[in-house]
Amino acid sequence: MSLDREAPIGVFDSGVGGLTVAREIMRNLPQERIVYFGDTARVPYGSKSKETILRYSRQIIRFLRTQDVKAIVVACNTASALALEVVEQEFDIPIIGVIKPGAKVAVETTKNNRIGVIGTRATISSGLYPSLIAQRNPDISVFGCACPLFVPLVEEGWTKDPLTEEVARRYLKELQEKDVDTLILGCTHYPLLRSMIGRIMGSNVTLVNPAYETALALGRMLDAKGLRNTKDTCEEFPYRFYVSDAADRFKEFANSILPYDVEMTQQIRIEEY
Amino acid sequence: MSLDREAPIGVFDSGVGGLTVAREIMRNLPQERIVYFGDTARVPYGSKSKETILRYSRQIIRFLRTQDVKAIVVACNTASALALEVVEQEFDIPIIGVIKPGAKVAVETTKNNRIGVIGTRATISSGLYPSLIAQRNPDISVFGCACPLFVPLVEEGWTKDPLTEEVARRYLKELQEKDVDTLILGCTHYPLLRSMIGRIMGSNVTLVNPAYETALALGRMLDAKGLRNTKDTCEEFPYRFYVSDAADRFKEFANSILPYDVEMTQQIRIEEY
Repeated sequence: MSLDREAPIGVFDSGVGGLTVAREIMRNLPQERIVYFGDTARVPYGSKSKETILRYSRQIIRFLRTQDVKAIVVACNTASALALEVVEQEFDIPIIGVIKPGAKVAVETTKNNRIGVIGTRATISSGLYPSLIAQRNPDISVFGCACPLFVPLVEEGWTKDPLTEEVARRYLKELQEKDVDTLILGCTHYPLLRSMIGRIMGSNVTLVNPAYETALALGRMLDAKGLRNTKDTCEEFPYRFYVSDAADRFKEFANSILPYDVEMTQQIRIEEY
Repeated sequence: MSLDREAPIGVFDSGVGGLTVAREIMRNLPQERIVYFGDTARVPYGSKSKETILRYSRQIIRFLRTQDVKAIVVACNTASALALEVVEQEFDIPIIGVIKPGAKVAVETTKNNRIGVIGTRATISSGLYPSLIAQRNPDISVFGCACPLFVPLVEEGWTKDPLTEEVARRYLKELQEKDVDTLILGCTHYPLLRSMIGRIMGSNVTLVNPAYETALALGRMLDAKGLRNTKDTCEEFPYRFYVSDAADRFKEFANSILPYDVEMTQQIRIEEY
């Protein structure tokens, strides 16, 4: 049992974006070890089908189990939207995603009962945010908007660029007209555009980043299951990183996001799991 | 032997872009049957490593061989740049890519011996266009420029958008200053931005689309090997399409590019090959 508690948390994403979730877990649950997997050989997920995302998620969960993780965080909105409901039934291990925590905090935040959600095409068309919000409060109206260019713009490094701002203004125009007072950043790359999105939406709109709430939800879940690590880890760097494609660009991005330097990243053939 | 000649040509790409090459083969070699494969479950290739692109290309070639193709066209610049040299040694079937034909026509086109190349990050950093051009004429200077946002912008449908034009102006600025008179569109999506790129570069710059020259090179190769189909095909629609992810968006895009309506697309699990 004590071994279980000291086992790491598995965190996965289509690529580097989920590191923004891993970062919140590191900050809020500093005693937990983490095994992170980024599916850089098949990134992005946001334009792919449910069937494919489900197959990929199953392979990744099977890989993470080989690492003896005690719980899994689906740190990718698209995989949370398309695969979580199925895989949490299939696998005998606690799995949480980012969408339920994001929906929860948005419901707690809105005052005028009008919430906007931005995400990938797949996340938005899944309708999962609206349906989870409706379960909590059916009086809330939810307005979704897919922003497919945000991820490539972030990956190009144009996060403070006037061109990106113009793209964002165009995407967000409809949500502004809907008079939302809360906006869910429903893709792990979007927090990197946070200040720009905030400026465009205006100070009356609260931006919700599900990453922070996901870390808290993970903590509650570990407590409920008696899985929280209570010992200080004796490892100097209790985090391991795996990718499905070459590690160089991943490491560069990771080092820009994380408060640690990622020294080593291992590459695995994820399709063999 | 006659059976061989009537066998189809295998054409593959990371996704839909290679249809611009398939289209040229249909136009220029109307007697040839085609089996097209688009790796939509793992698209894009342009930001991935050589090792991964090589593994994907091998799987696709193994799949195409199960379709009894007589020759293979790598209709993807990234795979042509990173994998062709290896796979043409490994497989006992004629394989051609798009880069050698593109380099050839660019060398024939330039008058001031200054050629520009635009493509994905992987294609540009492979340095294959410059090295093939230098083999033909070492006096030619080649200037490469990666344009990672062009593919997502085309896939968003913003091909005639002022925002795309602004992105293009920024990417192309350096090449304009290099005074090139010939520009290779080194990614199969880029012909869809042809008029915009042409306007920005000006009428003194000739745009080279390797797709047309690739179809001609394929015809010459089939002739040389006695593999050209001389009979009229009796099939009404001698083209078959396979993808690794859901077929709907592929069909939509295919129907916008091809002079035929693609009725059926089959999905396969490419990682099993």
